[in-house]
Amino acid sequence: MSDFITKRSEDINQWYTDLVLKGELADYSDVRGCMVIKPYGYALWENMRDVLDKMIKDTGHVNAYFPLFVPKSLFEAEEKNAEGFAKECAVVTHYRLKNDPDNKGKLIVDPEAKLEEELVVRPTSEAVIWNTYRNWIQSYRDLPLLINQWANVVRWEMRTKLFLRTAEFLWQEGHTAHATKNEAIAETEKMLDVYADFVENWLAIPLYKGKKTESERFAGADETLCIEALLQDGKALQAGTSHFLGQNFAKAFDVKFQTESGSEEYVWATSWGVSTRLIGALIMTHSDDHGLMIPPKVAPFHVVFVPFLQSKNPEQNAILLNKCEEIQAKLKEKGIRSKIDRDDTKRPGFKFAEHELKGIPVRVVIGPRDLENQVVEIARRDTLTKEIVSQDQMEIYIEKLLEDIQSNMFERAKTYRDENTTRVSDWDTFKKQIEKGGFVIANWDGSAETEEKIKEETKATIRCIPFDIPQVEGKCIYSNKDCNHTVLFARAH
Amino acid sequence: MSDFITKRSEDINQWYTDLVLKGELADYSDVRGCMVIKPYGYALWENMRDVLDKMIKDTGHVNAYFPLFVPKSLFEAEEKNAEGFAKECAVVTHYRLKNDPDNKGKLIVDPEAKLEEELVVRPTSEAVIWNTYRNWIQSYRDLPLLINQWANVVRWEMRTKLFLRTAEFLWQEGHTAHATKNEAIAETEKMLDVYADFVENWLAIPLYKGKKTESERFAGADETLCIEALLQDGKALQAGTSHFLGQNFAKAFDVKFQTESGSEEYVWATSWGVSTRLIGALIMTHSDDHGLMIPPKVAPFHVVFVPFLQSKNPEQNAILLNKCEEIQAKLKEKGIRSKIDRDDTKRPGFKFAEHELKGIPVRVVIGPRDLENQVVEIARRDTLTKEIVSQDQMEIYIEKLLEDIQSNMFERAKTYRDENTTRVSDWDTFKKQIEKGGFVIANWDGSAETEEKIKEETKATIRCIPFDIPQVEGKCIYSNKDCNHTVLFARAH
Repeated sequence: MSDFITKRSEDINQWYTDLVLKGELADYSDVRGCMVIKPYGYALWENMRDVLDKMIKDTGHVNAYFPLFVPKSLFEAEEKNAEGFAKECAVVTHYRLKNDPDNKGKLIVDPEAKLEEELVVRPTSEAVIWNTYRNWIQSYRDLPLLINQWANVVRWEMRTKLFLRTAEFLWQEGHTAHATKNEAIAETEKMLDVYADFVENWLAIPLYKGKKTESERFAGADETLCIEALLQDGKALQAGTSHFLGQNFAKAFDVKFQTESGSEEYVWATSWGVSTRLIGALIMTHSDDHGLMIPPKVAPFHVVFVPFLQSKNPEQNAILLNKCEEIQAKLKEKGIRSKIDRDDTKRPGFKFAEHELKGIPVRVVIGPRDLENQVVEIARRDTLTKEIVSQDQMEIYIEKLLEDIQSNMFERAKTYRDENTTRVSDWDTFKKQIEKGGFVIANWDGSAETEEKIKEETKATIRCIPFDIPQVEGKCIYSNKDCNHTVLFARAH
Repeated sequence: MSDFITKRSEDINQWYTDLVLKGELADYSDVRGCMVIKPYGYALWENMRDVLDKMIKDTGHVNAYFPLFVPKSLFEAEEKNAEGFAKECAVVTHYRLKNDPDNKGKLIVDPEAKLEEELVVRPTSEAVIWNTYRNWIQSYRDLPLLINQWANVVRWEMRTKLFLRTAEFLWQEGHTAHATKNEAIAETEKMLDVYADFVENWLAIPLYKGKKTESERFAGADETLCIEALLQDGKALQAGTSHFLGQNFAKAFDVKFQTESGSEEYVWATSWGVSTRLIGALIMTHSDDHGLMIPPKVAPFHVVFVPFLQSKNPEQNAILLNKCEEIQAKLKEKGIRSKIDRDDTKRPGFKFAEHELKGIPVRVVIGPRDLENQVVEIARRDTLTKEIVSQDQMEIYIEKLLEDIQSNMFERAKTYRDENTTRVSDWDTFKKQIEKGGFVIANWDGSAETEEKIKEETKATIRCIPFDIPQVEGKCIYSNKDCNHTVLFARAH
């Protein structure tokens, strides 16, 4: 099975694609830039979504649903936002097809069904939502408004990559409205922390939290906070963003409220989102040359049972399957999701490789002799090690093992990330280090010009001004000017 | 509160709109034909979705996600399906906007970013899914393929109505592939039963199950099964459909499989879906002049607490709120969702009306004297009756009450439906009965011509050939020919 997977050392991009396709997470489609999320990948997404949805609700937000289409006049209302997304918009111009008079059985766009105003397929929903908020907000009593939406969005990307960059993707987008600037800033920070909690503690991906430089901000935001991960290809990935939007959208859509003291003010806004891109981050953080490695907390299956079935021995098979089902029921009581491999045509070695490819955290193997001895063989996906465990201690053993695997995956990823985060103070080392991959910590003079030049010369961008790394006095890595902006550089996806 | 709601007897359509808007389920948007599902409406949808999703999974299906866009050449491949939906398709023709040179700050569609092939925004996903299934199905071992998708779809409707008919709506669509015709037919029937179970036992809406006549079938189906409800405006509503697609899509998309005996055959298909339209059905089945009435099994909140708060008496308020929270915790243990009305500025009467408008099944009122007597007043939304209940019996009382309300709502709706289902055998009575509203059972000669003429003259359509009403010999209501098709007529939404 793993023979079919390209090794990381040979071609890490092909390795990634092999994992997605052969691990059955997603498939290409005949629709440019759009992918199909296959059942196994979607089950993973559902687990992720359910966890994050609960976190979003537990912090006081409610879900709602807004239209897919944004009329052009609304889309262009917040100019910076519009400018930022205009180049990647799918645009609906007609609302009907008709039979092609020259080509029987074929259809053409009906020129008589041209829309008076074009509709943009939402690349993000600030415009359509703030246009609605105008009607929902009159007084301070209507605030804060804390709404989240799970939806599909479309950004016309020229170079796409399964999960990491697709024209259509699934995401959640929070859009909140507040009476004061401070409250909106606190919300922006709170949601960044929610994302960091989710990504580190559930997806086992270590992060740097920080804020974006002005040139890397979301179009229309006054401040963009972000979480940045380091993938196994040495590139950084922006895993989630939380934006403080100031009063920009309130002004563009004329959303005012009456304060407690009776004056009228513009509303303060935030927005924040994470997407199916996180699945790409998860794959490229954890997997190895054997295949995927899914963190237990979000894995579609925690455990796969592989009984030693033999097509010639149906009676023994029944006993083995019975035992698996018995253990399965006990695991289910503990909330442990498992499946039984009932195929009696394939060799065990082939099956092991298949389940390793799928990244199932724990494999339980049981043969006729194990029945006699009342034991099973338990293998863990992260270390590929095995142990013989007594059947009567299994549930507790597996419960503990899943926790171990979860924390081991995080620690391993964190070690990799830390080993590939280097502090440098001269330009030559900087260039070499960027070429090697990983995060580079360096001082920057704070100018967009320097930032742009560094990008031109090295393809590295400032991923963020990190919160957890002290800002120290020093010389700018490029301009040599004295400065105290200590920032995180990397080439990014 | 209910003063603001138009009475059913005055204008039932306005009543419906009032309920949706003032009950805060949904709002109009500035996007033609598209609505905003507000948090309260979306919470209802989430409950409905979660229940149905579990039912779909429990019957062996898995979820996946397919692209929003359908390239025109795929869309037109199954000709009947294409013809059926061509007139209501939103079409993406361009992938970029640019600055309007004549109008600073405005955008125009960039003519240089015209797509080579137009993309249809999915009105339904058979085309894009069957184009994918071709790559997934080679052998009988790959079958059955049992996949469901939760998604948004767009059908360009000219006359829209909140929830009941909108250009964009949310739904699930199942798409299955089978080795044999019989298996596909069994699947079509099974999913109709799942829908009927869900709609009758969770949404408390009584149904007729049946099959559509040829002219009312889904475009591209060999057979369409359906569930039909009767709303309070006397019109029928198609609440869900399950299609046997024969080999039509397999042939259009060349999806063949190798059978166990080694021959090659086209795959057999089904598809089935229900949508946010069910929320419209729920509203117009159960509500009254006081407002919404949400069936307990899917209600966002089962219970609302209204303590008698007085802004001048914060100490007493704290005691009352404490008691509510204490009971709330006990209800939560039983899975009963509740909220506490903490507003100390509004009169109780105003609050009662507000919660009745929202359709919350149970109201618990508690005042200072109730604290002394260790009782509460419990009001039920369906009958608007009240009872004094001892605090120590509350959880059991409410648990039982919610079951009562659920079954009472179903029984009441069923009585209405049955009282408005009339069997007729002459044309004059038929016309009068159709004018009055409700279902009319009558014989039909089986011809599309007669069906069309009845529709022209009365606006009534054949909702279905019902499964639960015996097919009897008799004369066609219109043509007077002898026949044995006993069918269900109604004007429909």
